[in-house]
Amino acid sequence: MQPAFRKVVIFGVGLIGGSFALALRKAGAVSEVVGFGRSTATLEQAMQLGIVDRIGSDIAGEVGDADLVLLATPVAQMGEIFARIAPHLGAHTLVTDGGSTKGDVVAAARANLGDKLPQFIPAHPIAGAEKSGASAAQADLYQGKKVVLTPLPENPGESVARVRKAWEWCGAVVSELTPQQHDAVFAAVSHLPHLLSFALVHDLAQRDNRDQLLSFAASGFRDFTRIAASSPEMWRDICLANRDAMLRELLQYANELHVLYQALEQSDAAKLEEVFSEARKVRSAWTQQ
Amino acid sequence: MQPAFRKVVIFGVGLIGGSFALALRKAGAVSEVVGFGRSTATLEQAMQLGIVDRIGSDIAGEVGDADLVLLATPVAQMGEIFARIAPHLGAHTLVTDGGSTKGDVVAAARANLGDKLPQFIPAHPIAGAEKSGASAAQADLYQGKKVVLTPLPENPGESVARVRKAWEWCGAVVSELTPQQHDAVFAAVSHLPHLLSFALVHDLAQRDNRDQLLSFAASGFRDFTRIAASSPEMWRDICLANRDAMLRELLQYANELHVLYQALEQSDAAKLEEVFSEARKVRSAWTQQ
Repeated sequence: MQPAFRKVVIFGVGLIGGSFALALRKAGAVSEVVGFGRSTATLEQAMQLGIVDRIGSDIAGEVGDADLVLLATPVAQMGEIFARIAPHLGAHTLVTDGGSTKGDVVAAARANLGDKLPQFIPAHPIAGAEKSGASAAQADLYQGKKVVLTPLPENPGESVARVRKAWEWCGAVVSELTPQQHDAVFAAVSHLPHLLSFALVHDLAQRDNRDQLLSFAASGFRDFTRIAASSPEMWRDICLANRDAMLRELLQYANELHVLYQALEQSDAAKLEEVFSEARKVRSAWTQQ
Repeated sequence: MQPAFRKVVIFGVGLIGGSFALALRKAGAVSEVVGFGRSTATLEQAMQLGIVDRIGSDIAGEVGDADLVLLATPVAQMGEIFARIAPHLGAHTLVTDGGSTKGDVVAAARANLGDKLPQFIPAHPIAGAEKSGASAAQADLYQGKKVVLTPLPENPGESVARVRKAWEWCGAVVSELTPQQHDAVFAAVSHLPHLLSFALVHDLAQRDNRDQLLSFAASGFRDFTRIAASSPEMWRDICLANRDAMLRELLQYANELHVLYQALEQSDAAKLEEVFSEARKVRSAWTQQ
């Protein structure tokens, strides 16, 4: 049986792109993977790890006959890549990405893909990224994980279905949102918590007695601040890319804290218990899907 | 060899009190454990689990010849217990507690122990409490965990040393702070994170699209909000007991968020990266002790 994809081109062969390649290979869904990237060392490592078959050197020559192109670079680099691949994309080549924000990626695609825009189906794989780089890539990274597609009005249905299938071959559970819905949802459940966690550690880090404080921090602090060890550059970019939704979320959260501050100031035990109880009820009922 | 403690009396035989009893037993440091509590069912369960030798029925008769009394009830009940045991405490009976806040417990002791105050050495065992009740008690709960003593100026040195030794027999690593230092430290590294975590879940729980939001929450949300499943009653009491330090921490944190809000509003990439980088550096270097 022929693999579903004869040729897949991946920009950025780190955790996200490398795992995508390994997963498609494992599923027998791809014949050839070609990698592009800024770092020659990373590309050579990806070769050694069996992530890519070849290191690409000529974008124009590689994307014309590719079945699928994945952009798995930092989001800030995607505009330039869209511009470089647009003139050379084959008529049947589909493009997807692995960016954590979608409004900005879609804007970059609209600005740079020209009449190839309908071939781009945006995606966000929800896969933990404490580690990074080609060496962290693994074939089962997406197994059972969510991938959100944010199709554009211009996307033909069969193209969306084909990109969906690619992520499903990786083991992912695929759902769809609009780019706007996506960014609002992830501002609330992911981007805001990251910012709050960074903020707490930064707050404590400024104190004269920082070492004393940290010496008494325990498991609650450990879990609350785990995400404060995330990549500063990546989260700077995510916050800026999703700025409007983040500002709304921050205002809403500040209002929540204001209510709790007042309750505490007035020793309003009933109000505190009401807020904490509602939170506990919801958090206890939640199970990661 | 005689055990260090002939008789230990424990008020509240749940996770904290029950584990203390089991640990002292395992260390061969106690001959007899007598339990008091509000719930007959819990006391009977503690009997069955081998936590206590007897269920106490007469406080006056039990605490006179006890070597050590542990108050492991909710902090709000401690004032009443101090008042009830004070007239009957033996000259050599020491008292300690397992409360998460110390300023309020010390105030309750000063108000109710009278001239027995020097016999009370306050303590806070830093042991996770996702579970509760006698059935959650375990002999190794305190193994390698921190216990903070907050001795009073009135405490004789040998009494502090003896209570320290009791917690060390439980496997704990014991350190000392003043009650004020303790409450300031734990407001920052424990009480504030709990409130922030409750606040985030409550914030999301109020939304019309709450189910959609929660369906896309992943591992970052999971860890950040783990402590939002904690006991609402306990954390209401902790917040109120440590109100002044909590108000200070909340104000400081709100200021931190205000700085980040402004940086985001101005798309100040450098400022965001600076804050996130400093947080990551400190969090990555931190290891739970």
